[in-house]
Amino acid sequence: MPFITLTTDFGTRQGSHTVLHGAIYGIAPDAVITDLSHEVKPQDIREANFVVNNSVFYFPPGTVHVIVVDPGVGTERRPIAARIGEHFFVAPDNGVLSACLARAAAEGWTSEFVALDKPEYWLPNVTMTFHGRDLFSPVGAHLAAGVPLGELGTPIDDPITIPLWGAHRHADGSVEGEIIYIDDFGNAICSILPDEIAHLPVPDGVEVEVCGARIQGMVRTFGDSEYDSDTLIALWDSSGYMLVSENNGTGGKIIQPRPGDKVTVRRLT
Amino acid sequence: MPFITLTTDFGTRQGSHTVLHGAIYGIAPDAVITDLSHEVKPQDIREANFVVNNSVFYFPPGTVHVIVVDPGVGTERRPIAARIGEHFFVAPDNGVLSACLARAAAEGWTSEFVALDKPEYWLPNVTMTFHGRDLFSPVGAHLAAGVPLGELGTPIDDPITIPLWGAHRHADGSVEGEIIYIDDFGNAICSILPDEIAHLPVPDGVEVEVCGARIQGMVRTFGDSEYDSDTLIALWDSSGYMLVSENNGTGGKIIQPRPGDKVTVRRLT
Amino acid sequence: MPFITLTTDFGTRQGSHTVLHGAIYGIAPDAVITDLSHEVKPQDIREANFVVNNSVFYFPPGTVHVIVVDPGVGTERRPIAARIGEHFFVAPDNGVLSACLARAAAEGWTSEFVALDKPEYWLPNVTMTFHGRDLFSPVGAHLAAGVPLGELGTPIDDPITIPLWGAHRHADGSVEGEIIYIDDFGNAICSILPDEIAHLPVPDGVEVEVCGARIQGMVRTFGDSEYDSDTLIALWDSSGYMLVSENNGTGGKIIQPRPGDKVTVRRLT
Repeated sequence: MPFITLTTDFGTRQGSHTVLHGAIYGIAPDAVITDLSHEVKPQDIREANFVVNNSVFYFPPGTVHVIVVDPGVGTERRPIAARIGEHFFVAPDNGVLSACLARAAAEGWTSEFVALDKPEYWLPNVTMTFHGRDLFSPVGAHLAAGVPLGELGTPIDDPITIPLWGAHRHADGSVEGEIIYIDDFGNAICSILPDEIAHLPVPDGVEVEVCGARIQGMVRTFGDSEYDSDTLIALWDSSGYMLVSENNGTGGKIIQPRPGDKVTVRRLT
Repeated sequence: MPFITLTTDFGTRQGSHTVLHGAIYGIAPDAVITDLSHEVKPQDIREANFVVNNSVFYFPPGTVHVIVVDPGVGTERRPIAARIGEHFFVAPDNGVLSACLARAAAEGWTSEFVALDKPEYWLPNVTMTFHGRDLFSPVGAHLAAGVPLGELGTPIDDPITIPLWGAHRHADGSVEGEIIYIDDFGNAICSILPDEIAHLPVPDGVEVEVCGARIQGMVRTFGDSEYDSDTLIALWDSSGYMLVSENNGTGGKIIQPRPGDKVTVRRLT
Repeated sequence: MPFITLTTDFGTRQGSHTVLHGAIYGIAPDAVITDLSHEVKPQDIREANFVVNNSVFYFPPGTVHVIVVDPGVGTERRPIAARIGEHFFVAPDNGVLSACLARAAAEGWTSEFVALDKPEYWLPNVTMTFHGRDLFSPVGAHLAAGVPLGELGTPIDDPITIPLWGAHRHADGSVEGEIIYIDDFGNAICSILPDEIAHLPVPDGVEVEVCGARIQGMVRTFGDSEYDSDTLIALWDSSGYMLVSENNGTGGKIIQPRPGDKVTVRRLT
């Protein structure tokens, strides 16, 4: 089955994201479309990186991921298509694939890219303001329908990447990262992975400092019964990152975390 | 066609609900997935009961309903799968199927349950915090792909049920229920069914009291032209429950109903 | 493939829109359903016109579009089905197809209508309050499954249409329109099309007045770098309409536009 996912910042209220569905079905009537998210913060390439990277690689090999978070629509920025590992991507060349490329580097996956310059794979009348409909979706549909990546444009080897979140270790052994994303529960997802604090006495012997609050020890799961609902907890999220959460909770009552806020993990003293 | 519905409290902004889609397609590529709702109030098992029971039985027989509203993820609570009538369910054993089971009892449908204890039907690396992806979705996909319920786990006969909303009749003939849910229009859905007030002079001879307001008589439909937009009305909702609505309206202007608030129906005097 | 789109004002939180999916799959198991939008403002037929018309014609010919924005449910308003050009529609006869019919007139497409009066194509027990489930979805599914339009009801030639947005030219050459819709970015979509201001010196020599603000000249694209983020810009939207936007922006900071507000385009002096 030709699987396609769509990630945009269009919202879902106005229905304009479904224009992408219509354009795809016109070219690839057998496509199975999943709306990955249409609620990326408008023009937020960094958030798009987080959202896309967290979900796309759970789809079957060969899935085509179309991403339309595109502050530069109508300017000279290139539209591109890519193969990253066994997945395909169609997106503006604005760094929105950076997290997936970092993952490919970590996993040892190969990748290849083309600049989309063959209008015969686009809709007939390309507007200046809706490349999602006129260009990215049709190209994604052709990929899903079996057109080889190399047919869709000219090979390039310099896709734009942007700096993303990370973590670094201080001389005293403490590790500093940042908040990447606030999820729908108000939980703060932090740029700290298990390997990066493996030298510390995880889980019980560490302290997590975030937004002026200090959390003593990490827990294994939300349902840990010794914590009540007015307690901040830190745990490993299903996607691998450290998560800071108001237990059983909807966040925002104890701390008001925001993307970019600093998070520090150190030995509990 | 193998139909699957998904109900979670993940929200749709972050895209993590689509990880379930990806996990399902990897096992059952022909699955037809419907997102029933991903906007259940976080960890609200009671609301999940309402949402699930209202929609699932309109799907074709054999549909698999995966429910991930799971405050106890990572604790000892059992993951289960069930057949209720002609429908299949995969969910944590936390009472989230109570409304469907009450309906089965009322309709005379049989049901059967298994505790999910066969990891060969899960994803390879089960995390503590994302059983939706690692366990419930894969099991749902295997069910949809034709694996018999009995293969997926060990039979049990003691699934957890929780007390739900109801109505009771006082000695004076009045009937007391409660508000179950506030819908997207601000309407209050009440736990009162036609049979329970059949001894009263419905529709014109009853009074409905809710949140300090008294409504005289029930109407047949929203469009009833003799009521203006600043009037509270009571009518039968499409799902069978009594609905209290600000006519033509978006609620919250006349009364501020909340789930659990008392609703009383009595003879109009 | 039998493509079906759904447009309602149900919201997505409660899951009741998925009852339509279930009802459709029961009749047309091969249907490919797209949720066009379930977030039309409650009972807002005018907004539904805008949302539907902007997306439906991008779907493949033969697609069935089911629209349930229905303030008159349960009253005498007729349920209808229509063919407009190569697309099918199922909806209440309340003017919700007006924009599509205006487009058909402009494009020279033919159309035909039936009043839905054949209960054998509905669900068995039609309630007074949920025609989306009981009537519109089943009829849409039968259409998608190949039942001819003429089988579903009695031909009519007087579908209700409602006045929609437009633009008119004053004696001094200025053109006055109105705001149709505020999108998820806070942009104001205006009822002014390129042809209607072609006599003015577009793009640089025009002034756009809206909500007390005056915008000098139109830009070609959002990414136009000479404008900063505290500037109002006017440009052509992908759907063809004039769009007023706070550049790079999420609107509402400079002006607070609302549907119905006046927009005037005149020669810049």
